[in-house]
Amino acid sequence: MAGNTFGNLFRVSTYGESHGKAIGGVIDGCPSEIEIDFDAIQNDLNRRKPGQSAIVTQRKEPDEVEFYSGIFEGKTTGTPIGFAIHNTNQKSKDYGHIKDSYRPSHADYVYDQKYGFRDYRGGGRSSARETASRVVAGAIAKQFLKGIEIQAFVSQVGDMNLGKHYTELDLSLTESNAVRCPDVEMAAKMEEYIKSIKKEGDTIGGIITCVAKNVPIGLGEPVFDKLHAELGKAMLSINAVKGFEYGSGFEGVKMKGSEHNDQFNGDGSTKTNYSGGIQGGISNGMDIYFNVAFKPVATVIQGYETIDKEGNMVQTQGKGRHDPCVVPRAVPIVEAMTALVLADYTLINRTIKL
Amino acid sequence: MAGNTFGNLFRVSTYGESHGKAIGGVIDGCPSEIEIDFDAIQNDLNRRKPGQSAIVTQRKEPDEVEFYSGIFEGKTTGTPIGFAIHNTNQKSKDYGHIKDSYRPSHADYVYDQKYGFRDYRGGGRSSARETASRVVAGAIAKQFLKGIEIQAFVSQVGDMNLGKHYTELDLSLTESNAVRCPDVEMAAKMEEYIKSIKKEGDTIGGIITCVAKNVPIGLGEPVFDKLHAELGKAMLSINAVKGFEYGSGFEGVKMKGSEHNDQFNGDGSTKTNYSGGIQGGISNGMDIYFNVAFKPVATVIQGYETIDKEGNMVQTQGKGRHDPCVVPRAVPIVEAMTALVLADYTLINRTIKL
Amino acid sequence: MAGNTFGNLFRVSTYGESHGKAIGGVIDGCPSEIEIDFDAIQNDLNRRKPGQSAIVTQRKEPDEVEFYSGIFEGKTTGTPIGFAIHNTNQKSKDYGHIKDSYRPSHADYVYDQKYGFRDYRGGGRSSARETASRVVAGAIAKQFLKGIEIQAFVSQVGDMNLGKHYTELDLSLTESNAVRCPDVEMAAKMEEYIKSIKKEGDTIGGIITCVAKNVPIGLGEPVFDKLHAELGKAMLSINAVKGFEYGSGFEGVKMKGSEHNDQFNGDGSTKTNYSGGIQGGISNGMDIYFNVAFKPVATVIQGYETIDKEGNMVQTQGKGRHDPCVVPRAVPIVEAMTALVLADYTLINRTIKL
Amino acid sequence: MAGNTFGNLFRVSTYGESHGKAIGGVIDGCPSEIEIDFDAIQNDLNRRKPGQSAIVTQRKEPDEVEFYSGIFEGKTTGTPIGFAIHNTNQKSKDYGHIKDSYRPSHADYVYDQKYGFRDYRGGGRSSARETASRVVAGAIAKQFLKGIEIQAFVSQVGDMNLGKHYTELDLSLTESNAVRCPDVEMAAKMEEYIKSIKKEGDTIGGIITCVAKNVPIGLGEPVFDKLHAELGKAMLSINAVKGFEYGSGFEGVKMKGSEHNDQFNGDGSTKTNYSGGIQGGISNGMDIYFNVAFKPVATVIQGYETIDKEGNMVQTQGKGRHDPCVVPRAVPIVEAMTALVLADYTLINRTIKL
Repeated sequence: MAGNTFGNLFRVSTYGESHGKAIGGVIDGCPSEIEIDFDAIQNDLNRRKPGQSAIVTQRKEPDEVEFYSGIFEGKTTGTPIGFAIHNTNQKSKDYGHIKDSYRPSHADYVYDQKYGFRDYRGGGRSSARETASRVVAGAIAKQFLKGIEIQAFVSQVGDMNLGKHYTELDLSLTESNAVRCPDVEMAAKMEEYIKSIKKEGDTIGGIITCVAKNVPIGLGEPVFDKLHAELGKAMLSINAVKGFEYGSGFEGVKMKGSEHNDQFNGDGSTKTNYSGGIQGGISNGMDIYFNVAFKPVATVIQGYETIDKEGNMVQTQGKGRHDPCVVPRAVPIVEAMTALVLADYTLINRTIKL
Repeated sequence: MAGNTFGNLFRVSTYGESHGKAIGGVIDGCPSEIEIDFDAIQNDLNRRKPGQSAIVTQRKEPDEVEFYSGIFEGKTTGTPIGFAIHNTNQKSKDYGHIKDSYRPSHADYVYDQKYGFRDYRGGGRSSARETASRVVAGAIAKQFLKGIEIQAFVSQVGDMNLGKHYTELDLSLTESNAVRCPDVEMAAKMEEYIKSIKKEGDTIGGIITCVAKNVPIGLGEPVFDKLHAELGKAMLSINAVKGFEYGSGFEGVKMKGSEHNDQFNGDGSTKTNYSGGIQGGISNGMDIYFNVAFKPVATVIQGYETIDKEGNMVQTQGKGRHDPCVVPRAVPIVEAMTALVLADYTLINRTIKL
Repeated sequence: MAGNTFGNLFRVSTYGESHGKAIGGVIDGCPSEIEIDFDAIQNDLNRRKPGQSAIVTQRKEPDEVEFYSGIFEGKTTGTPIGFAIHNTNQKSKDYGHIKDSYRPSHADYVYDQKYGFRDYRGGGRSSARETASRVVAGAIAKQFLKGIEIQAFVSQVGDMNLGKHYTELDLSLTESNAVRCPDVEMAAKMEEYIKSIKKEGDTIGGIITCVAKNVPIGLGEPVFDKLHAELGKAMLSINAVKGFEYGSGFEGVKMKGSEHNDQFNGDGSTKTNYSGGIQGGISNGMDIYFNVAFKPVATVIQGYETIDKEGNMVQTQGKGRHDPCVVPRAVPIVEAMTALVLADYTLINRTIKL
Repeated sequence: MAGNTFGNLFRVSTYGESHGKAIGGVIDGCPSEIEIDFDAIQNDLNRRKPGQSAIVTQRKEPDEVEFYSGIFEGKTTGTPIGFAIHNTNQKSKDYGHIKDSYRPSHADYVYDQKYGFRDYRGGGRSSARETASRVVAGAIAKQFLKGIEIQAFVSQVGDMNLGKHYTELDLSLTESNAVRCPDVEMAAKMEEYIKSIKKEGDTIGGIITCVAKNVPIGLGEPVFDKLHAELGKAMLSINAVKGFEYGSGFEGVKMKGSEHNDQFNGDGSTKTNYSGGIQGGISNGMDIYFNVAFKPVATVIQGYETIDKEGNMVQTQGKGRHDPCVVPRAVPIVEAMTALVLADYTLINRTIKL
């Protein structure tokens, strides 16, 4: 209930604060006999890592994962996979200034109200540092899901929208630039824009689009656990996310049923894919695609007025090393959460027929 | 795992197909000592009921709920509340024509693929008829949540958007018209539009906005079970929903952090509310508000080509009595799911402090 | 959390009080494509039913189950199976005398203390009437578990112990007598004894032994969810149960490891079976067997002193129609719970390997 | 589902193999504001630790726990508590001899059959080494349960039974001897006996009795999650446990209802306590007490015949450093699991009333 576990059969429980000794987790229910590619895990961690380019936070964290159990002679054993990422670069002193005041649009105030108490160092548990554990779990989920391709990319920064459907893009170009936008020209513009925002000491939001190909027919559980409902929850659980839509999404409300219906081909595939690969909450074999909206990071390096614990107005200023735009580093997180959902539903789907 | 249970501590498990004997459910974890207002429950069922106006399906179902347990001398006892709504107006013969073919953008095809077998009468379990059980459970959750006001309304039909923030509207007018739009002028236009769509034998999508006022500070669990993540899942689990956004939502991505941050007043409230009443996944005492996008209903009363079980193309036509636009009847469902989430998190919140 | 759901993947949620309108439940996760034998379900209900013989309670309840969903054209569909058993013979007036006082060793007192409120008619939710719903669910689980044989029988009444290992008995004789003891001579003595106890207005305890044959190797999950741990919980959740032991059980503590170890045959079977068919929490293909201890029923038809709600001592007397010994009717309940555990673990076991 | 998580609201997920890098876990749902006594945690670990006396295994493991998160400035924060115990004394080579053969009455055979694969070093996940993580979690649960006293002790070794009810014993003497039996004379005899068993290279079983005092009225959830059902599962999940009984237990079956019923005093307490502090699955304020049966450890240091992976009979011999009798070291594990159950049900109990 306490909210630190995700998934049912393929499940991960994470722990850790941004400035504690370590973050990590336990992956339970991962099937046995999976050969683990450790480089692939580290590669996903590197894609999420601070300091990887000029447009992300310049904190330096090696983000090396140590596995404690569940893998033997290179293969998963079916027992829980315990892992830890030791925190090495916590500058708690960067946060002394927020100990007694609440940063606007952060979780500071509500944590204090909820728990009567808060680890005030850098957001503590509410920090997005926790998502490194998700990336580890997601990377292992991907290795279980051989054959399914999950690719996320940045499709909007501020009001700069890619303006193209994912089917018109070469997604293999996503990693070719710091923004993680497969349209290289647009990526360059986005990068310039993020740099200018950073110079202002400000931040900006963005949208990540994710596509999952080769998903078998049948994943997803009626009624409450529809595949897109769980994907939506997974995405909305990522720090800074404000919205989720799949297939035709919010634009689809303007369409008529006669236009929106995806007519069948003889093989069960459909001529269009407004359904986004999911019908009645169950994958239909077409590409699954969805958009995830991220708000601008709340920490701005500008002076502002806020309140302290006694409710007095105080003048303060953002410090620390923060991202001007969170979407480039969030791409592997979106992929990881997608993989966790698909791995979980793949296992559930084994149990539904005689 | 099978997906027919919602909630953790305040939880409902539902059962029932559109054309079986009954639908219903079990509400477990509802606290004892709640005085039940049965009229209020029936009233919410009536707001969801078919046949209530000219712009909804003309099926006639009384939708009367029978309680089997858990309520004694007018009060909840703390034991599970079993209930049933008997189906009285199933015209299974309306569906003989779909037994061997798959309706586009319905769940027919994926159910057959997933379960090797399907109850083909009217969608069976995938029918939105199931949501009547949610309305019953949600109505009881509302009675537990005394003091919290949950109000949903239609804010868009097709491309006709209300164009006003909820704070500019008199939400008490929502029930004054068949569309359930609090802007009476706009409601009239929407109603006309839906009638014209119906005449075409077509359908159209829409958006429901929901507001929850007087939510106490502290509801919501980090990390995976953020309040908005669970609200998002709840909404996305409703039939025909394609998207969810809260607070600034998809528009918020265009804003800078310095604009988007909600500055504090001395009492902990905020001057703006782009956060939508939730920060770090936890309610902050401000109004919670969010939008839910519904696609056009897939059943259109027009001829179309589709496939049968053998993959042959066949010519068919929509029959039965269907909604030209689902949002007017979905308003109480959105409220019910919101109430279920808030009831669940209210109980969880009692357990987090020494 | 509220405790009315059993199982993970194959799960049942029950509802209902002894004197409410109906009891029933929802079975979720039952695989599709199982052909349902309705007579077999009713037969198990009849084995549990009051009034079936001279040594059980003489209440008359038809205990006919009505299925509302999840079964179509005789087969499970994979959607939840909702069912109800309507209460027809509740004599609430039998219980007026306990409204304001607490029966010793019943749940009356603790329910009032826990919930601030109680349905005082016949025990309400704490009545063993609830177990009829378990029998329905268990009967369906049995039909899923084709090939596995689950047989329970009475092995002790009072201090009259069968004195034979199950392997020395012809279990097919279990249903040949009212006690459900496969040793017909002993059964006759037990029956006489129970009749004499009844005449005294008293009650007596007993032990049920259960055997599961042909259980495949591999059921059971380390660490907390060992197969025998879940079986133990299942049995201990049945009304009046005070103890559980499997394999060598409490007697096994007196043995040395060199005696107790089950030596292997070449085919992986073992020469002895002190392990009770479970090693490290996982079935090993040998027979699973265990004992379940039931206390004497608390309702005695004798005068006694007890307390009322204000704590005053009051004189009262047991009324109503009660069982002098619960074990004959509990045999199908033990089988049902065993089937539910094995069905659940059978599904879980499908998910553990690549 | 994979079985490595215990508890609902106060829950622990453990990981780790006997010969991996570390064992550990995540405690989730532990309330905030608990001041942590780290010495008390280490003290419980020491009571479980190998090498503590002449009658336990002589392996040397420091068993020092490292906390990674969830505790800040000496208090719990309400966020998950991640912890690890690094393995320092794994002698994997001790186990080379079992790589290709199966030890009788161990989990070797079933793990291979279940997972297609096994970590053969010392039992891997099936080793009781995992219980160190339970002791850590249980020690924290105890600190949450201030006021409740949980005391376990050895009441039987082999056929040497204490022959006294716990109320006749001075439980404060439990830790005065290596056996952990509060009857000092009997303890000396048990110790001698265990030493003689050890000399034979053999092992012997035993019984642990546990008492919980000052448990508030109302803990326990009907129907499936009765307090004693969850306690039973908790105990049966401990390695080598074969049986559980509470209150009058297996002996109670011989009693008549008129004898067994616990008559009330005016204050709601009872004159006798055959109920074992639990009625209808809910604590009634009287002492909770129960017995847990442990089989003899399977590893005997004697030659024996067993099978290899191909099913050939092979001659082998137990090696390594093992316990001749597991109960002395299992006392803190029984206490830990009891604490975990009571902590969980304490939290659940906060949610059941309006």
